[in-house]
Formats: sequence, structure tokens, C-alpha cells
Amino acid sequence: MISEFYKEMTGKSSVIRQFFAYSMEREKELGPDSVYNFSIGNPSVPAPASFTEAMNDLLNNVDPVKLHGYSPTLGLDSTREAIASSLNRRFEMNYEAKHIFPTTGAAGAIAHAVRCIAGEGDEIITFAPYFPEYIPYITGCGATLKVVPADISSFQINFEKFEEMLNEKVAAVLINSPNNPSGIVYTTETIKKLADILRAKEKEYSHEIFLISDEPYREIVFKGTDSPYVSKYYDNSISCYSFSKSLSIPGERLGYVAVNPKAKDSDYIVPMCGQISRFTGHNCPPSIIQLAVEKVIDDTSDLSIYETNATLLYDALTDIGYDCVKPGGTFYMFPKTPIDDADKFCWTGAKELGLITVPGNSFECPGHFRISYCVPTERIEKAIPLFEKLYKMFA
Amino acid sequence: MISEFYKEMTGKSSVIRQFFAYSMEREKELGPDSVYNFSIGNPSVPAPASFTEAMNDLLNNVDPVKLHGYSPTLGLDSTREAIASSLNRRFEMNYEAKHIFPTTGAAGAIAHAVRCIAGEGDEIITFAPYFPEYIPYITGCGATLKVVPADISSFQINFEKFEEMLNEKVAAVLINSPNNPSGIVYTTETIKKLADILRAKEKEYSHEIFLISDEPYREIVFKGTDSPYVSKYYDNSISCYSFSKSLSIPGERLGYVAVNPKAKDSDYIVPMCGQISRFTGHNCPPSIIQLAVEKVIDDTSDLSIYETNATLLYDALTDIGYDCVKPGGTFYMFPKTPIDDADKFCWTGAKELGLITVPGNSFECPGHFRISYCVPTERIEKAIPLFEKLYKMFA
Repeated sequence: MISEFYKEMTGKSSVIRQFFAYSMEREKELGPDSVYNFSIGNPSVPAPASFTEAMNDLLNNVDPVKLHGYSPTLGLDSTREAIASSLNRRFEMNYEAKHIFPTTGAAGAIAHAVRCIAGEGDEIITFAPYFPEYIPYITGCGATLKVVPADISSFQINFEKFEEMLNEKVAAVLINSPNNPSGIVYTTETIKKLADILRAKEKEYSHEIFLISDEPYREIVFKGTDSPYVSKYYDNSISCYSFSKSLSIPGERLGYVAVNPKAKDSDYIVPMCGQISRFTGHNCPPSIIQLAVEKVIDDTSDLSIYETNATLLYDALTDIGYDCVKPGGTFYMFPKTPIDDADKFCWTGAKELGLITVPGNSFECPGHFRISYCVPTERIEKAIPLFEKLYKMFA
Repeated sequence: MISEFYKEMTGKSSVIRQFFAYSMEREKELGPDSVYNFSIGNPSVPAPASFTEAMNDLLNNVDPVKLHGYSPTLGLDSTREAIASSLNRRFEMNYEAKHIFPTTGAAGAIAHAVRCIAGEGDEIITFAPYFPEYIPYITGCGATLKVVPADISSFQINFEKFEEMLNEKVAAVLINSPNNPSGIVYTTETIKKLADILRAKEKEYSHEIFLISDEPYREIVFKGTDSPYVSKYYDNSISCYSFSKSLSIPGERLGYVAVNPKAKDSDYIVPMCGQISRFTGHNCPPSIIQLAVEKVIDDTSDLSIYETNATLLYDALTDIGYDCVKPGGTFYMFPKTPIDDADKFCWTGAKELGLITVPGNSFECPGHFRISYCVPTERIEKAIPLFEKLYKMFA
């Protein structure tokens, strides 16, 4: 009577995990310094001191019965208010607490958002390259994920293909900017064009098409990069955020859904999220983390290392001969592989040189590989000659 | 395109919540001392000092990048090992870390467990009175919840009705002991009889029937009460636990699934939980809470007040004339209402006397009402004359 569906899934591990597991194995064999693990997106800078202080302060000065008590299903009012005001202040929006639903990271946010606005028979469109965990979030709500092929010249949106794929069944479009794995940020022009197309299609189909904006890297944008706040350009928007990257607390699982106040049924969506969480037994992120983040809502870790690493690595790789679109944010870079077979390229790097990266196939964008450069700068410096060796093995 | 299913649900609030909301409203009007809120199960004693110390220690002595980093999908190994050894030590079991899956409380544990072993077309049987949130957990996996009527003389299992309801479609039986709302603990005799019946039916139907044991109140058992560890008596068992009540940290959302090592496919069930969590975007409870609980795994809050309150209230209520099965644990009591209409009885108490309790209808057991006595003892003392007044209004 055990579920065959889930049982079968346990046998399949993702390519990202395979590379990660391999790197762990090699580290055990060769020592950590001989392996250059660029396969995962775990922030490498500490949480800001203000976060630790806020946690200490709560633990030592608040009545524990209150501090550790149940959070309401829709999250703590004070936390929701702090998030709304911060967004309003920074992006000239008009959120109220009722538009904010705290979640366990962006993963929880997306899983809730799609269940609010799509179901059996619906389609949700996303754009390659994309984060493969979108698939379970979306199949979990009964809808089907459709993927627009990448515009590999810029990693902005391939509008021609996108328009071909739009149809009456499309309930939502899911974007991720700044993007994992490309590191690219959608420009204001891209977002405006996307919004125009969606508004026209909403009229044509006589139903809403929601724009779900997955933005855990919103705070990691490099100097001079145009980085619009998506929801500002399209009313039927739901933003999905996580504090994992901005505060370097991915393990503490805090993010949120922010519903554009002008969206259709905007007053219902957050209460609907509360209902959805009853089915998954999820019920709210931890109280103490909500309260601590509320106190440091506008802070971030020192994120400058990611830009330092990006510049260093991008310059070196392009000097070597790699073809790469320059990242505008995140801690990822997504160069072309010098041969078509990205899998072969990445396994060779891993096995011969201890250089662990992830093939683009995992993100439905073959012929590329992802480098996660959320590591100490000194590791990048040491890895550059290895990237050169690897290039020369194939070029 | 908004989901009508979830939208409609937002209009319906549970009776428990209605009473709770009413109590909040009255407290605002009359001041907190005029309202006796016995409607919710929020622990009233602080977390043990050792938990706060463990949290402080982690925050101040562990590298924040490591401390707040991603937990593996299946939870932190060290936490899983600590849970397994604690259970083995206390209950003579043979769990290994691979049988333990940390979850966001017992809610998350049950929602994962049912998805592992049941789906479309299956039935899961539970026993009245029962916690109404079982319904979304179970409909969420596609199965149907069937409820065996209560044995109101003892709140042990009504085996006659249970055996009538067993059939080939039953994939699991879900029990909750110590029980919310009755406060009753299933005896060793009850568990043995249940296990015997299930084993016989497994043979007859040639498939497993899992026993899912929801046990967040396991640590709150009063002196002299027989309280068997369920999984010891039936191999195909999955225990669902929460630290919410034992450590008084319900807001921090930590619990676990513990799969009996002798269960069919026991090595698969935890990895399956990991896969299930991908669909709900849940991905692991917070790292710092896993790490802190690991350090205080055998501790509890000072839970003695619940027994003090139970004795005081039970003696007073039975003196007044209420008919009540004596609770053996938890912080709930479930007396008969002196009139059949429990709803009328509870609303009268709430409106005329500020005495907030919950009608048994909410737990599919009419003619009773639930008193949550997780409050300071002095509030119980003051409420006794009101319980007497209320009784006399109807008796």
C-alpha cells in the first residue's frame, strides 16, 4: 500500500545532487582543498550581526511562552506589517499586512502561489534556463509546466517563442530574476514588454494570467544593473521572496508571498494560502525567525563578495576563451561549454581536476554549465588555472 | 483563474477558531481577567532553560554560515541520530537515523506519513473524538477519512464499530493517544487488541495496514496511567511526534516522523517523505531549532502544572455534577454537557459568563465539550464557580 509514485522518485537523484555528492566523496578522499565545489548555492557570507543580536535579544528578554508560542496561520501580524512597509518604502508599493503571507522560503512561497491560481488542466509557463524544482511545485497543484527555450544571446526573454506558446490554458507565467542559473537580471524593458503581452492576452482570453515572480536574489544585484521591481509593472503579480540569500539564513526557512494589492481577488489570496497550508500540514515558519527578521527587515549580509567574485571570474573566463553572458546579479554564472556535451564537460572537470560545476541540461539549457561562486575569493583565484586547463582539453 | 476550491474554504472558519476569535474580542472589551479562555492548546509553561541556553550557545559559538546553512532535505544527520537514540533508550526500540524525518510539527509529520502510504481511493480510519485538522491532511493525499464513533464510556476504542468499518480499502489507521480532546490515554490492552485485529486483517486482505500514531502529548501523562509506546506493539507503525508540547515551543515548528524499522519498506519511507516535501515546497524545519532540540533531546518543560490543573478541575467538575471520564494525560478534559446541544451550552458559557470552551461537535463527538486547561492554576480556581453557574443554568 506504499505509494509507488513517491517510492519510484526516491531512486532518481537530480544531476545537481549527483555532482554535489561526488564532491563530498572526493573531499573525503583528497581533503577539502583539492576539490573546488562550485555546485551549490549556499551563501558563503555570515548573517549580519544585527540578526544574531535580534535572536539573542528575543531569547533573553521576551517571555518564552510568548516568544515560542503558536504563530497565527497567516503569520505574525507584526512581521507581515514590517515586510509590507519595507516593500512600500523601497519600491513605492502599497502593500498592507493582509497581502503578505510568511512561508518556509521561496520554495514554500511558490508552492502556495501556484495552488492559489492554477489547477488540473492549467498551464504555467516559465523560461529556460530555470530552477528544476519548479516541476514538483507545479505538478503538485495539478497544472503543467511549459518551458520557453532560452535566448542564449542575452538570457532575457525569448518573446517570439513565448508568444507562440501562450494559449487559453495558461493560468500563470513564472519568472526568476535575478536568475538562477544565468545570473542575468531582466531589464525594465523586458518586464514592460512581458506585462504588455500578458495584459493583451488577458483581454483576449477573458481571464487573468498571473505573473509569479520568484525573487530570492533580489538583493544581490551588481553596480549599474537595471533591476526593476516586477510587481510594479503588472497588477496581477505575486512576488515570492526568501531571506535565505539576503540574510544568509537558508536553513532557517523564511520567505513570503506578497500579493500586489491591485491584483484580482488580492484580498483572498493570502487567506487562501492559509487554507492551502492546512493540506500540507505546513502551518507557518518558525516564530522566533519571523520575529528576528522583522527587527532587521532592511538589513542584508555583506553581499559585496559576490560582485568581487563575479568580476574576477568573468574576466578570467572570457580571457581564457569561454563565451559567457555577463551576470548582473546572484552568485551564479552560466558560460557556454566549449563542446556541446555539457555533461561530459562537467564530469571531466570534476574527475580530472576536482572542479565541480553543474551541466546546463539540469536547467533545460544544454551547452552551458553553471558555476556557483558563493565561495571565498581565494578559491576562485586558485581555480582559474583549472578552468583554463579544462578549456584547453576541449577547445 | 483563482482556485474556487480554496477561495470557498476561506469563508468557513472552524468552530474552535470562532470561539477563540470571540474570546479575543471579549478580552478587548472587558479586559483579559474577565474572560476565561479554555479554548486553545497553547502550552502555558516556559520552554526549559536548557533550550534557551542551547539556542544562545549556538548563536554565539557556532560559525553563522554553518549554523544557518541549508539542512539536507531529510534533516540534519546529528538531529536524526539524537532522536533515534533517545527513542531507543526510552522505549527499547531499534531506530536508526534513516528512520527519522524531521518535520514542521506533528501536522507536517502526519501530512507526510499519509502521503507515503495512501492515495486516491484508499480509506484511513480514525476514532472519534478526533482533531479536525486530520481532514485536510487526509483529503490532501487523495484518501478518505472514516470515523469510528466514540466509546463515550471510556474513550478507549469502540472495537465493535471499528471491525464493522474495516474493509479492503483501508490503507491506514490513525490514532491519537494521549488524546485531544478527551485527555484519555489508550491502555496497553487497547493497543494490543488493535494490533491483533490489524495483523489479522493484513493477512485477510494481503496488504499492509499502517498504524499512524499521532503522539504530540506523549510526554504529558499523569501518575499511574498506563501509557504504552504504540510502535512497540505493531511493526507497520509510523509515529508522528512534535516537540511543541513537551518543550513548549509550538511556534518553532519541530516534530518528526519515526518509521518502525520492522515496517514494510521501512528504508523507503523517509526518502519518500523527502520527495513529498518537494511538492509542497516545504523542505525541512529550521536548522537552528533542529540543532537546539538535539542538545536537549531528553528534556521537557516543567509539565507538572497540567496534572495539578487536571486533578483540581476534574474533582471540582464531578462535585458540581458534571459527568466526565478522568483524563490520563494532555491538557484537555472532555466532560458531557448537561444538555444535548453542546453548541448552545458552550455559547451560553461564552456569552453569559466569559467561559470559553469548545463544543464536542468539532471533534465529531456531540454532547460533550472540551476544556483546555493549559492556563495558570489560579485561573482554574477562579473559573470553578462559573462552571457551577453554567451547570445550574441547564441541569
